[in-house]
Amino acid sequence: MASFLLKSVLVVVAVFFISSMAQASDPDILSDFIVPAGSTIDGNFFTFTGTRDIFGSIIEKFKVTKVIKAEFPGLDGQSVSLAVLQFPRGGVNPPHTHPRAAELLFIVKGSLEVGFVDTANKLYTQTLQVGDLFVFPKGLVHYPYNSDWNKSATALSGFGSASAGTVSLPTTLFATGIDDQILAKSFKSDIATIRKIKAGLSS
Amino acid sequence: MASFLLKSVLVVVAVFFISSMAQASDPDILSDFIVPAGSTIDGNFFTFTGTRDIFGSIIEKFKVTKVIKAEFPGLDGQSVSLAVLQFPRGGVNPPHTHPRAAELLFIVKGSLEVGFVDTANKLYTQTLQVGDLFVFPKGLVHYPYNSDWNKSATALSGFGSASAGTVSLPTTLFATGIDDQILAKSFKSDIATIRKIKAGLSS
Amino acid sequence: MASFLLKSVLVVVAVFFISSMAQASDPDILSDFIVPAGSTIDGNFFTFTGTRDIFGSIIEKFKVTKVIKAEFPGLDGQSVSLAVLQFPRGGVNPPHTHPRAAELLFIVKGSLEVGFVDTANKLYTQTLQVGDLFVFPKGLVHYPYNSDWNKSATALSGFGSASAGTVSLPTTLFATGIDDQILAKSFKSDIATIRKIKAGLSS
Amino acid sequence: MASFLLKSVLVVVAVFFISSMAQASDPDILSDFIVPAGSTIDGNFFTFTGTRDIFGSIIEKFKVTKVIKAEFPGLDGQSVSLAVLQFPRGGVNPPHTHPRAAELLFIVKGSLEVGFVDTANKLYTQTLQVGDLFVFPKGLVHYPYNSDWNKSATALSGFGSASAGTVSLPTTLFATGIDDQILAKSFKSDIATIRKIKAGLSS
Amino acid sequence: MASFLLKSVLVVVAVFFISSMAQASDPDILSDFIVPAGSTIDGNFFTFTGTRDIFGSIIEKFKVTKVIKAEFPGLDGQSVSLAVLQFPRGGVNPPHTHPRAAELLFIVKGSLEVGFVDTANKLYTQTLQVGDLFVFPKGLVHYPYNSDWNKSATALSGFGSASAGTVSLPTTLFATGIDDQILAKSFKSDIATIRKIKAGLSS
Amino acid sequence: MASFLLKSVLVVVAVFFISSMAQASDPDILSDFIVPAGSTIDGNFFTFTGTRDIFGSIIEKFKVTKVIKAEFPGLDGQSVSLAVLQFPRGGVNPPHTHPRAAELLFIVKGSLEVGFVDTANKLYTQTLQVGDLFVFPKGLVHYPYNSDWNKSATALSGFGSASAGTVSLPTTLFATGIDDQILAKSFKSDIATIRKIKAGLSS
Repeated sequence: MASFLLKSVLVVVAVFFISSMAQASDPDILSDFIVPAGSTIDGNFFTFTGTRDIFGSIIEKFKVTKVIKAEFPGLDGQSVSLAVLQFPRGGVNPPHTHPRAAELLFIVKGSLEVGFVDTANKLYTQTLQVGDLFVFPKGLVHYPYNSDWNKSATALSGFGSASAGTVSLPTTLFATGIDDQILAKSFKSDIATIRKIKAGLSS
Repeated sequence: MASFLLKSVLVVVAVFFISSMAQASDPDILSDFIVPAGSTIDGNFFTFTGTRDIFGSIIEKFKVTKVIKAEFPGLDGQSVSLAVLQFPRGGVNPPHTHPRAAELLFIVKGSLEVGFVDTANKLYTQTLQVGDLFVFPKGLVHYPYNSDWNKSATALSGFGSASAGTVSLPTTLFATGIDDQILAKSFKSDIATIRKIKAGLSS
Repeated sequence: MASFLLKSVLVVVAVFFISSMAQASDPDILSDFIVPAGSTIDGNFFTFTGTRDIFGSIIEKFKVTKVIKAEFPGLDGQSVSLAVLQFPRGGVNPPHTHPRAAELLFIVKGSLEVGFVDTANKLYTQTLQVGDLFVFPKGLVHYPYNSDWNKSATALSGFGSASAGTVSLPTTLFATGIDDQILAKSFKSDIATIRKIKAGLSS
Repeated sequence: MASFLLKSVLVVVAVFFISSMAQASDPDILSDFIVPAGSTIDGNFFTFTGTRDIFGSIIEKFKVTKVIKAEFPGLDGQSVSLAVLQFPRGGVNPPHTHPRAAELLFIVKGSLEVGFVDTANKLYTQTLQVGDLFVFPKGLVHYPYNSDWNKSATALSGFGSASAGTVSLPTTLFATGIDDQILAKSFKSDIATIRKIKAGLSS
Repeated sequence: MASFLLKSVLVVVAVFFISSMAQASDPDILSDFIVPAGSTIDGNFFTFTGTRDIFGSIIEKFKVTKVIKAEFPGLDGQSVSLAVLQFPRGGVNPPHTHPRAAELLFIVKGSLEVGFVDTANKLYTQTLQVGDLFVFPKGLVHYPYNSDWNKSATALSGFGSASAGTVSLPTTLFATGIDDQILAKSFKSDIATIRKIKAGLSS
Repeated sequence: MASFLLKSVLVVVAVFFISSMAQASDPDILSDFIVPAGSTIDGNFFTFTGTRDIFGSIIEKFKVTKVIKAEFPGLDGQSVSLAVLQFPRGGVNPPHTHPRAAELLFIVKGSLEVGFVDTANKLYTQTLQVGDLFVFPKGLVHYPYNSDWNKSATALSGFGSASAGTVSLPTTLFATGIDDQILAKSFKSDIATIRKIKAGLSS
C-alpha cells in the first residue's frame, strides 16, 4: 500500500520534471539562472566535463558532440549552446536544418567546404581554412564537408539557443517511414529509386 | 542633371525600402501598425483582394497562394499570415519546412493525409476530413497529400508570422546545385542515382 | 486513509496542470512541441476534429468557434490559432479587442463590413467580398458586420498566438458590475442611460 | 532648382525618421541605446524635464501626463515608460486598455478606487490608499476613480513598454464615427440611445 | 506512515512552487495573468500594500524598497516593477547594474546627480530636479547621488521587468570572496589595497 | 552645386546605415538574413576570415578577439557570436559583465579558474581543464583566470547574441571619470585609495 502511494508520489515528481523540461523556453528568464526543482547548486552546476577528452579522440566517421540543455542543465534559460564537429578525411555532415537557431561555425583544424540554401532556392558556398568562421542562418538547409582526402578537420559551432534541434534530411525524408508514393511524387521520381535510397540509408 | 539627381534620391528611397523590409521583425512593435515610409494610409492598407476569385478557380497541379508581408504590407509587425492550399486529385505538397512559424491547417474541402517528422526522427501521420485541423510544429519537415484520386481538396493554413518562409526539400536539395559528391555521400547513395533525381526535378 | 492520500496526490497533479496552463507562454519553445505531463502522444495530439461539421451548420445568431490552446492542447507553444466566424443575415460581432494577437480575417462566404479604431482615434473601415482579407492590428477595437439582410456570411480568422483572448466591449463595460456612477461619468452620460444599456445587455 | 532637390533630400531624411520611429520595437536591442540618425548625444539625451513642475500644478479635470518614446526619444529600445495621473475630486480616468503593456499604479497622494475586467468577464476591484500599488494586466479594460469628493489624488504608473498605447473606450466606441446601426445592435440598444451617448461625448 | 506520505506530497508541492518561480519568464504570457498553483484570486492578488507608509518614513542611510515579483506575485508575467529610492543628505546608491531591465528614474523630492557608463566606456552624467526623469539603459553601470548636504531626496523608478535584478558592484567585487590575487591583477593594484577596500566594505 | 547635392544624398545614405545598425535587434527576423542596404551578397557575406591566423599567434597579455556583428555583418539578426580568449601565463580577464547575453566558455588549451557572482551575492567558482565548459549566466559579473604560471591558455566563448556587449568593471568604475567622492562613498573607502586605484588603471 505504502509503496503504491510512494510510487504515485514519485510519478508526480517524474511527470513534473518531464513537463518542466518541455515547458522551458529560450526567451529571457526572470532569474539569474534556472535551478532544477529540488536541487542545491554550486559551481558544478555551471560546469560540463563530458567533452574533456574530445581533442585527443580519433574518429572514423563524422561525429557531432552537442553540449546542449539536455546534457548540461546549467544552459537552461541562457540561450546558448556549442557543438564539436569532427570530420575524418572526406567526411560530410549531411544536409540538415536547426529549427531553433542559426549556427556559427569556427574551423579549429583542417579545412571545410560549406554551403546553405536560402528560401529563394539560392545556394551559397565557401571554402574555409583554420581560423575562418561561417554563419548558417536560422532554419535553412546547410552542410559542411571535408573535401580533403588527406587530413581530418575539426570545427566548433555556437548556437543562440540552449536547444537548437537538428533535422537531418536524408534520415528524416527516407528513414522514418514516409510513404513511398508520397516521396516518389514529391521528388518527381519513381518508387524503385525511392526504395533504393531508403535501402542505402537503412543499412 | 536634375534627372540624375532625382534618380539618386529615388535610389536612396528604394534602398531604404529594401532595407526596411529586411530589417522588419516579428516581435511586438511599438506602434499600432507599421506605416511604410512616405505613405498615407486608409482602410485599403489593411485589405488584401488578390485572392478574391480563389474559391472559383480550377487547378491542375498543387498550388499554394500565400498572403504574407511581401504581398500584403499591412501584415508587417502583426505576426500572422494565411495561405490557401489547392490540391488536384492525388496532388501533394512536397515535404518542406517553414523556418519562422508553425502551420495550422484547416480542411475546407475534400480530405488530406498529412505527416511530419520531429527532431527525434519520429513520423506523425493523420487522415483529415472537411472541418478538421492539424498543426505542423515550427521548423519541422511536413507534407499534406490528397490521396483521393476522385476529389480535389482545399485547405487554409494560418501561420504565427507575417513571413514564415518555405524550404521545399526536393528543390532545395536537388535543384540548387549542391555538389553530386556531397549528396551521394550524404544520402549513402551513388552519383548516378543523385543525377537521376536531379534530372526529374529539373524537367 | 489510502483514498485520502490518493486524493492528495491527485490534487497535486491537478494543481500542476492548472499551473502549467497558466505558465505556458507564446515565445519560442525549446522543444519541437510541448507534451502535457504524463502523456504519450501520436498524430491525434496534433489533430482537432471539434469543427468537423461546422460548414454544414445553420446559425441564427452570430457565432464564433475558436480553435485555441484551451480546446486543442497541440497548439501550446506554436503561436498560432484559428477561429470560424458565422454571421446570420444582418449579424454583428460586437466591438472587441484581442489582447494577445492581431487577427487576419478571410471571407469564405458572403460579404462583411469591417472596421477598427487605432490609438489615435482614427476609424478604418472596409467592405469585403468572398476571398478578401483584412487585418485587425493587435489590441485594437474592431468589429465585423454582415450588413446584407439577404445572405449569411462566413469568415475564417488566423491569430499569431495560441491564446489571443477576447475582450467583448459591450459585455465587459456594461455586464460585469462596473459601478453606474463610474460609467455615467466616463461616458459623460447619466445613470438612467447606463442602466438602460445594462438592462438590454443582461436580457 | 537646387532648392527643389534639397527639399527632396530633406523629404527623404524626414521620411526615414518617421519610418524608423514606426519600425522601432520593444524587444531587446543590440546596442546600449538607440541613437537617432545623425545625432550626437550626451547626458541630455537620457533626460526628460517636461514634467518638472507637475507636482505643483492644480488640475480641474482628470489629466494624464505620459513620458513615453514619442516625447522622450531616450526611451527607445528600453522597454519602460511612466505616466503621472492627476485626479480632481471625484475625477475618473474612463475605462481603457493599453495594447502594449501592463500598468503598475502607485498612489502618491489621496486615494483611488480601481477595477479591471479579465477575458472571462470577471471584474476585480480595490480601494487604494497612499503608498499602495495595483497592477492592471496587459490589454485588459481598467479604470481608476477618485471617489473622494473632498480630496484630489495623484498616482504614478509604470509600463513595461516605451510606447504602451491607450484605447479610451468611450471615445473609441462613440466618438470615432462607428455606424449607429452597428453600435445599436452590438449594445443591444436602440439608435436613439446610441445617439444620446454620442452627443454627450462630442460636447 | 500517513504523515510521511503527507510530507512527501507537501514536498512535491513545495518543489513545484520553487520550480515554477524559477521558470517564470518576462515574455508575453498566454493568459491574462498567472495564477499561483492552488490559489483562488480576487482584487487583493493585484494589490500591494507593503509600501503604504513609505512617504512618511525617515531614513538615515540610502534605502531602496523594491516592489517586484518576489514580494508581489501579481506582477508575474506582467513585465513591470517599481522601486522607491530614499536618499538622506549626501546619500549615494553605489554603482550597480540591473541585468534584466532599463531603469526610468523620476525625482519626486529633492535633487540628484546621476551617471552611467556605456560599453564604449563613455560616462554620461546629469543633475536632476524634482519632476525630472532619467533613463539608465539596460545592463549598464549607473549610480544616483544626492550631492545636497542640506536636503534628503526621493525618487521612484520604473522597470520593464517584474524582476530586474541588481548587481551592486562594491559588494559583488569586494565582499563575496573573489581571490585577492585576481582582484589585484584585475585592478592593476596590489593586495594591500584590495584588502583595505575589502575591510571597509565588510565593516 | 551638383557635388553638393550628391554629397547630401550620400549623407542620407550614410546616416541611414548608422541608424539601421543602431536599430537592428536580436529577436527573430522576418527574412532568412539581413542584407545591408544597397548590397549584393554571395558566400563571402557569411564568411569571416579576420581570425585566420589566431591559433598561431603568441600573446604577451590577455587578449580577447570578438567575432560580432560590428566586424561580421552576416551575424546581424542571427543571435549568435563567438570570441577567442588568449591568456598568457598568469593572465586574467578582469571582472566584467555582458549586458546582452550569457557566455558559454570552452577550454581549448591549458586550464582556467573561473568565477561569477549572482544577484544574491553568492560567488560560484570552478577550475577547468582542456575540453571543459562553463556557462556565465546573462548579465552577471564573472572572470576567467589562468592561475598556471607555466602554461598559456586558450578558450572559445559562444554568446546567444550577435552583439553581447562588454562592461569591464575596473575600467568602467575607475577610468571613465566618475567623481572621486561618489566612488569613495560607494566603496566605503577614502579619496586617496580611490585615486591610487585610478592611477594604476590609467597607467
